[in-house]
Order: sequence, then C-alpha cells, then structure tokens
Amino acid sequence: MNDKYILLASCKDQVGITNLITGIISKYGSNILHLDHFTEYDHDNSEEGQLYLRFEFEKVDDLKAALEHELEQKNIDFELFDSAVNTKIALFVSKEDHAFNEILLRVKRGEIPAEIVCAVGNHEDNRHFAESLGVPFYYVPSNESKDKVEEKMLAICEDHEVDLIVLAKYMQILSDDFIDHYKDRIINIHHSFLPSFIGANPYKQAWKRGVKFVGATSHYVTADLDEGPIIEQNVIRVNHRYDVKSLKKIGRHVEASVLAQAVEYHVFHKVIVNNGNKTIIFD
Amino acid sequence: MNDKYILLASCKDQVGITNLITGIISKYGSNILHLDHFTEYDHDNSEEGQLYLRFEFEKVDDLKAALEHELEQKNIDFELFDSAVNTKIALFVSKEDHAFNEILLRVKRGEIPAEIVCAVGNHEDNRHFAESLGVPFYYVPSNESKDKVEEKMLAICEDHEVDLIVLAKYMQILSDDFIDHYKDRIINIHHSFLPSFIGANPYKQAWKRGVKFVGATSHYVTADLDEGPIIEQNVIRVNHRYDVKSLKKIGRHVEASVLAQAVEYHVFHKVIVNNGNKTIIFD
Amino acid sequence: MNDKYILLASCKDQVGITNLITGIISKYGSNILHLDHFTEYDHDNSEEGQLYLRFEFEKVDDLKAALEHELEQKNIDFELFDSAVNTKIALFVSKEDHAFNEILLRVKRGEIPAEIVCAVGNHEDNRHFAESLGVPFYYVPSNESKDKVEEKMLAICEDHEVDLIVLAKYMQILSDDFIDHYKDRIINIHHSFLPSFIGANPYKQAWKRGVKFVGATSHYVTADLDEGPIIEQNVIRVNHRYDVKSLKKIGRHVEASVLAQAVEYHVFHKVIVNNGNKTIIFD
Amino acid sequence: MNDKYILLASCKDQVGITNLITGIISKYGSNILHLDHFTEYDHDNSEEGQLYLRFEFEKVDDLKAALEHELEQKNIDFELFDSAVNTKIALFVSKEDHAFNEILLRVKRGEIPAEIVCAVGNHEDNRHFAESLGVPFYYVPSNESKDKVEEKMLAICEDHEVDLIVLAKYMQILSDDFIDHYKDRIINIHHSFLPSFIGANPYKQAWKRGVKFVGATSHYVTADLDEGPIIEQNVIRVNHRYDVKSLKKIGRHVEASVLAQAVEYHVFHKVIVNNGNKTIIFD
Repeated sequence: MNDKYILLASCKDQVGITNLITGIISKYGSNILHLDHFTEYDHDNSEEGQLYLRFEFEKVDDLKAALEHELEQKNIDFELFDSAVNTKIALFVSKEDHAFNEILLRVKRGEIPAEIVCAVGNHEDNRHFAESLGVPFYYVPSNESKDKVEEKMLAICEDHEVDLIVLAKYMQILSDDFIDHYKDRIINIHHSFLPSFIGANPYKQAWKRGVKFVGATSHYVTADLDEGPIIEQNVIRVNHRYDVKSLKKIGRHVEASVLAQAVEYHVFHKVIVNNGNKTIIFD
Repeated sequence: MNDKYILLASCKDQVGITNLITGIISKYGSNILHLDHFTEYDHDNSEEGQLYLRFEFEKVDDLKAALEHELEQKNIDFELFDSAVNTKIALFVSKEDHAFNEILLRVKRGEIPAEIVCAVGNHEDNRHFAESLGVPFYYVPSNESKDKVEEKMLAICEDHEVDLIVLAKYMQILSDDFIDHYKDRIINIHHSFLPSFIGANPYKQAWKRGVKFVGATSHYVTADLDEGPIIEQNVIRVNHRYDVKSLKKIGRHVEASVLAQAVEYHVFHKVIVNNGNKTIIFD
Repeated sequence: MNDKYILLASCKDQVGITNLITGIISKYGSNILHLDHFTEYDHDNSEEGQLYLRFEFEKVDDLKAALEHELEQKNIDFELFDSAVNTKIALFVSKEDHAFNEILLRVKRGEIPAEIVCAVGNHEDNRHFAESLGVPFYYVPSNESKDKVEEKMLAICEDHEVDLIVLAKYMQILSDDFIDHYKDRIINIHHSFLPSFIGANPYKQAWKRGVKFVGATSHYVTADLDEGPIIEQNVIRVNHRYDVKSLKKIGRHVEASVLAQAVEYHVFHKVIVNNGNKTIIFD
Repeated sequence: MNDKYILLASCKDQVGITNLITGIISKYGSNILHLDHFTEYDHDNSEEGQLYLRFEFEKVDDLKAALEHELEQKNIDFELFDSAVNTKIALFVSKEDHAFNEILLRVKRGEIPAEIVCAVGNHEDNRHFAESLGVPFYYVPSNESKDKVEEKMLAICEDHEVDLIVLAKYMQILSDDFIDHYKDRIINIHHSFLPSFIGANPYKQAWKRGVKFVGATSHYVTADLDEGPIIEQNVIRVNHRYDVKSLKKIGRHVEASVLAQAVEYHVFHKVIVNNGNKTIIFD
C-alpha cells in the first residue's frame, strides 16, 4: 500500500480531465486509492472555473512517463510524487525551541515522513537537540549584512538539496531574492490568528484588545510579510486571567502544532496554492 | 450551477470504476463539479478493499438512464439524486422544542434544502410553532400500545411520502418493525457523546463521572438502541461549576446543532453507511 | 437557592477589601455561594493593580442597605443585583432572523433569565415570530434621518424601561448620543473574529484571505465602531470548499450562539468592563 | 509577585469560613491575588453543601503558622503551598516518547514549574532523552514479579523525595498497595475520552464504532482501573479517512497535551479531589 504515486494537478475547468487521467491510470492497471476533484468558481466571476485534483494510486512501471507526457500535452499544471521519496527539510530557528523540537520529534517518530537534512540557527541555543538527533546544525548569526547571511544559508540548503525550508520561529525577515529560490517551499509560523495582529508583539496586541481566543497561522512565505497563502490555523480559548506572559506560553503550544500540521500537509503532498493566494488542502 | 446530479456509489475496490463513471459523464458532455473517491481497507483484513464514491455533475439529457444502466450492469450499489428534488422530512418530537425548532428554522431559512412535510408529536407542546410555519402537526400520544401508535405514524408518513424521519427529541423507542420501513432513513439525536453514557439520564451520568466535556451524537436508528451508525458528534467543554441542570441546558445547544448538521449531510446526499455500521461523510 | 444577591465590585487593589465585604455578609448570617476575586496588574505598569470581585450570596433582610452603605463609604465601584429581578431586554433587528430567534427562544425556554420587553425592527420581517411569543414589535424604518429614528427608538426603550439593548443583526450604526444613553448596556454581534475583518463584508474578506476558521464577536457598543469591549467570541473551522455563501451560512450559527452567550453572561451579572476596554467574565 | 502562598481548603458549607480566612490574611498585611470560593450542592441531596476554596496571597512572616493553627482548630481540610517550592516529579514511561518528552520539555522551558527528579522506564528507549536533560533514568524492567518491580520503584521515588508520579504512557497497572503510597498523587493518561473505550486498544474500538472525535483523559490513579478522578480531557475531530494507525498518531498529540495540562494544574495547586471521585479545577 505504501508504494504509490501522488498527483497534484490544476487547470481551467473543463469536461473530461478526470476521465483522461483515470483512463491512463486504469490502462496501466494501477488502482486509485484516493481521488479528490474540486472545482472552484470565483466569487465575482462565476463563469471562470478552476479545477484542482489530487490522486493517490499504485506505482506501476511506465505509468509515470505516460502520465507526464499526457499532462504536458494538455497544458495541465501538475506535480507527480513518489511516496517512497521523502521531502528534504531545512529547519531555520532562532532561540525558542518549541516549534523546532516539535518538527524534529514528529519526524523522528515517523509521523511526518520527511528527512531533516539540516538545521540553521542564528543563535546556538538549539544546536544540542538537533545534533542529538543526528541533524547537522549550522550557526549563521544575523549580525552580518542580510546579503551575506542569506548567501551562506542558500549555500547550506543547496549543499543539502533542500526541498522545503521550515521557519520554526526563525524571527528574521527573508529577502525577496531568497524567497524566489524557494517559491511555495518556505513555510512560516506566525504567532497570531492572521489577519489579526499582523506585525510585532501579537500576544501583547491580543492582550490589549481582550480577545477570547489566541491562535497561530502557518503560511507559505511570500514577498508580502504575513500575507502568504495560509496552510493551517488554530486557536485556543483564553480569558481575562491570562497576562501577556501566559498568552505567550499557551500560544507556543498552538504555534508548534499548527506548524507541524502545515509541514505534514506539505510533505504528504496535500497542498495546492491557487492564483488568488490561497491554499487548497486535500485532507 | 444548481441543476445537478449527485451520485453515491459503492463496490468492491477494483481498477477502473471511476474511469468508467467519468467516461459516461464525459461522453454526455456533463461537467463534474466535485468527485471524492475513497477506498477503505479493513483493519483486520487488508486485502479486501471497499470503494466509496460521491460525484456532483451537471444535469444533462439522457445521462441519468445511461448511468443507471451501466452501474446496474456492473453490480455497483448506487443512488442517483437530482439536486432540484428536495428530501421530504417528517419531524417526530416530544415536549422539548430545541432540536425541533432548529431543524424547522434552518429549513425555513433555506440552509437545509428539504421540505418538512409533517410533524408528529406525542405531546401537543410543539404544535403551535410547526403550524405557524405551515407544517401540519399530528398529535399521536404514546398512551396506546406501541403497535397502534406506530401504525398511525406510519400512515402519516406514507400519506406524506416521507423520505426521512428525524427524531428531534422524540424520546420513544421505535420497534424493529417500524425501523425496517425506513432503513438508514431515521436520524436520531442522543444526548451524549456516544459510546459514553448509553441509556437513561446521560447528563446525570456525566455529572457523576466528572467529565470535562459533554456532547451529543446523531445516528441512524437501528434495532440496537444507541448503536446505529454515527453521522455527527460534537462536544462542549464544561467544568465543576456545572450541575445536572446546567449540563442539560448547554447540552441542548449541542444536541440541536449536531442533529441539524446530520440532517444537512443526509439531505445533501453526503452520507454512505458501510457494512461495518459506520458512515462515510463526504464533506 | 435562587433567592440571592449578586455583587459586582471593582477598586484599586488593596489589602482587606474582600475581608470587609465577607465580614458584612457573614454578620447578617448570609451564606456565600460563589466568590471570585481577581487582581489584574497592568502589563506596562505592574505596580498598579486593580481588583475585580463577584459574589453570589443569600438574600437576607437589611444586608443590602448595609453593604451599599459600606461600599459607598470606601469608594468602591459596585452594582448589587437581586437574582429574582429579570433584566428587561429590547431586541433590535433588521431582516435576518437567526440571532433574533435564538435570543427569543432561549429566553422562552428559561435558559436566559430575562424578559424581552420589546422588539424594534427596521424591516417587518421578524414581526410575526416576535408577536407569536407575545413580544410587542415596533417597526421603525431607517428611511428617515438618524435623529428621528433614534428618537423613536429611545422613546420605545424608555416606555418599556429597558435595561439592555441587544442588536441581533440590526445592521445600522447607532449615534454616539444614542450609545451614551446605554453605556455598557448595548450588546452587538459582529460577523467576524475581531479584530480580523473589521468593516463591511467580513465573510467575503475571509474568503479572499483564505482563512481556515471564521468566527463571530459579541461586544458592548462604543463610539468606535467594532472596537468595543469583547464579551464573547467563537470560531468554526472551514476549508477551501466554502464559498462566500456557505461561509455566511455557517457563520450565522456562530453569530447566534456567540450573541446568546454574551447576553447570558450579561443577564447573569458576570461581566465587568475594565478601563482598558476589556471585559472580565466571571464564568 | 512570585513569592506567594497557595491555599486549597474544603469543608462543609457554612457561613463565615471565607471571612475567617481573609481575616487572618488581612491581619498580617498580606494581599490576596486570587480567591475562588465554590460551593457544590449534591444533586440528590441539596441540603448538604460542600465548600471548596483556593487562595493565592503574598508571603508574609508568621502568616503560615497562624493560618494553619486556625484551620486545624476549625477542622477544615487544607493544604498550604509555598509557590517558591517546586513539586518533585517522577516520570514513569515505557517505550513511547511523546507524553514523556512533552512533560520534560515543558518543565525545561519553565512552563511547568516543577523539578523532574527522576525517570523510571520498563524499557530503555527513553533513557537518552532524559539523561540529555540531566534527569537520572532508572531501568526497571517489568519481567520480574510486580511486587519486586514496585519495591524498586518505590525505593527510587523515596530516595528522590518524589511528590508526584506521572505515568507518561507507562502501560503497566500499578498495585493497590503502590497506589496507596501516593493517593491523589499519581497522574495517568488514558488514550480515550473516558468513559468511552475503557480497557485495551481504545483506538481500535474507536475506529470500529466510527466515532467522529477521539480523545484522551488524564486522571488520578485509583484502585479502580480507568475510574479515577478526571483532571483533564480533550478531543480532536476525525473522519472516515482515519484508520487505526492514523487515529493513534493524532491521538498521541492529544495524549501529550492533556497529560501536560493535568500536570500543570496539579503543580500550580489548582486541583481538589472531592469525595465523589471528581475534581474541582480552579482555573
């Protein structure tokens, strides 16, 4: 059951696409395990539909090439993944350990089928735990120019053939140039329920406003700070007894679990980013 | 967009079924709006898979007959619904009004696309509200023999060509014979998070045990009391400050919303009951 | 057990206040049923504490006068309520019925111990249901000047000796002058999880941003639109399958339950508004 | 603000107790930071009330002795804690790491103000992580008689002057005799939303029943297996796509967070166990 392909595809909505793809898969004798076909019609322009597809199906000789050939012919955007190939993740981190540890532990336990190929920290605090799990840790302090810092980090990621960068409380803003290298492949965790409390000190803002829930948001990083496509969010109820310190404390648990969930969606190939800066999560 | 067919289908897992169905749909030029293909492998016997399918697609002349013909040929279990045809619901109720009103109001608002064709009460308490919304109310007291009572209720349901019976806090146990007339078409709301607190006085049981959440469970009614396939559940946090009376009060809100959600799943044709007494909810 | 007093009090934090109050209550032989003593220290200025208190205790002759006398002497802000006296509520409503009906039905069921003394609508849509429950309905259309409209509404509220105005989807902005008449006694429901999506069309904004939860916020109305002290919030998970219409539909359920919960907190005298535009909810 | 006393007290409900205690605290010039006075009336016998109290107040010379003297005189059950004295915890564990790591990391981060004085495992799997955080790990395999095993564990706990034993997925049943040594001071995590799915393989039971949520329950261990006073519970929504393996996976996250929350309540001295096998959580 574990040796399978996962196909993510998207194109303008039209008759026959799913029949075309299932036809090829059937022809090669592969069994479809899951298939989700979702059509979105834009709210303001309901004539224009977009089709989003996710398939899981058995790995069979020659099927991959045949499928790729056909989808390219039809100008369908797609990615085809082999479930046996693990995503290679670089974890970026600053001083705090909660999100960083959560990802490392879930990968170690086999809950997230990925390989953490390296950790990059602008502080040394999290070196020990990474190394105790056999993950090489690179100390790249933020006291140089952003250009220099990012050049080093880019080199590390390239050396390790990184597929996905996870900002596990990295706390630095990446340049547009850096982001361009990993479009839709950098996942951040923001410590608020976006779009509430954009910017600095969201827990203090939350405390001042007297909200009854705090939350966290995991999103792909784009050039617009805190504006990237949201992958996952969650919230937790709080009350007047929480001061800023205890909001931060309870918030850490939400941050860690929301980031881990977002990474899990990504490495299980359950996410498509649509044009409108939103995600389709095939869950 | 609203004139569409919905197909629920199930069969032994095998290569080619979804391709077969999408082929027919495509051939008639109908566009698929949603498609969910789910394969379940039994935990104890992973060789034996079962396929569950739900399609939404455009209504096109002659497509229905062609599809029905082909699915019958292949011995696939299926139901094919026309989205323009509303489910006809009979609401059964006793004294309490909360679940009963919730269903009536959601239907009135157009949130649940169904027609409440009649209400049956073993008390008169809810007559006024039903009639104010134009729903005929039948008073069938429970002080006769169950046979007599059920005979009357069956006649009412048959007169109104009822598709679905909703027990909106009806508080009487239906006979196996009655249930047989509406297999997988009677929805009940049980006032606990099943399988916790089966039987009488679940809120008092919950209070005694000191649980930190109470809940409600909506299920199809079967011959085994409180054991039918679960459609929807939800819970709400409580604490030591809740006595039995306040558990009942907060529980009413969960009961009403869980039952309404279950009814909504049913009338949108999102539910398949599998052999193992469980539901697939295509949501 | 139901014949009791409820005391809400607040003052600068200092030694001995709770001892003073419990001393008076004990002296008169009254039993305290609940007492919550909460001290808040401002985040930026931790020297300055504020004390918030809520007591429930048995009604005993002469105790009320003694307590009021003492609290006035000590310059403690307080309100003393008799649990036997129901809050008189005016419901303001526009076309939508969900929040309006929820409040009416919870009051009718005795879940919210209040009296709905009148309903005011700027459309006629909700007259029937109000009147069917014996609540006088006043049609005050919004097509006149705001001054005129508010003058009429004020007269209605004064005639009915209204304690609390509940905006159950009233959809009009009240003038500062009107609000001044009912400081901390007008409760609104906003159809977003504030501070997200302030202003118009929050569900469309939520859809565009691709958030994974929508919510609702109930707050006291102040001169700053959508900025009043938050009493209650809640959220519900959504996904990419929700369009704006289905967000609105699921949102209605959250709106109704959040508003009802906020009204319940208010009429059970569980809310203190602090200086910083936040609420203490003694739950 | 951190140097304070916490008082938990309970007695038959009567006039004047809270006044008595606040009187002593005031007399010594100590400021009360929080006070929660809760009276419970038994559902079946509403004449008989029980009073539960929790105070936080400033540490002041001689106050402790005075208070203890008075409470003993009055035959009030109480415990008086100094917030500067950390609870000494022994963690018992088997092979799984999730609950064990969660407690260790929260203590390390200072989120749970306790000292993990030792870890006891019936397998070696978790030695490394414990020792990397400086916690001595004792390997006590379960292949000897229960008497022998428990004798060793008891000796370890006594050597380390353990206040609280946390069963972080220990997976062995403790004898009544062992439990007697730590009455209301052994916290377990059960991998279901009790009382659902008592006994073995709760996730498989949950899968078979088709429930829509799975959960976890943390409780004090008593002689009756899975029947001790519940401290904390939580649930997470699942659906038909979850097989037993994925229920276990998602369940681990709930287990870890529920256990950590229960331990937190305990070490912040927020829990009283009442006679009826339930907890009062002063949160």
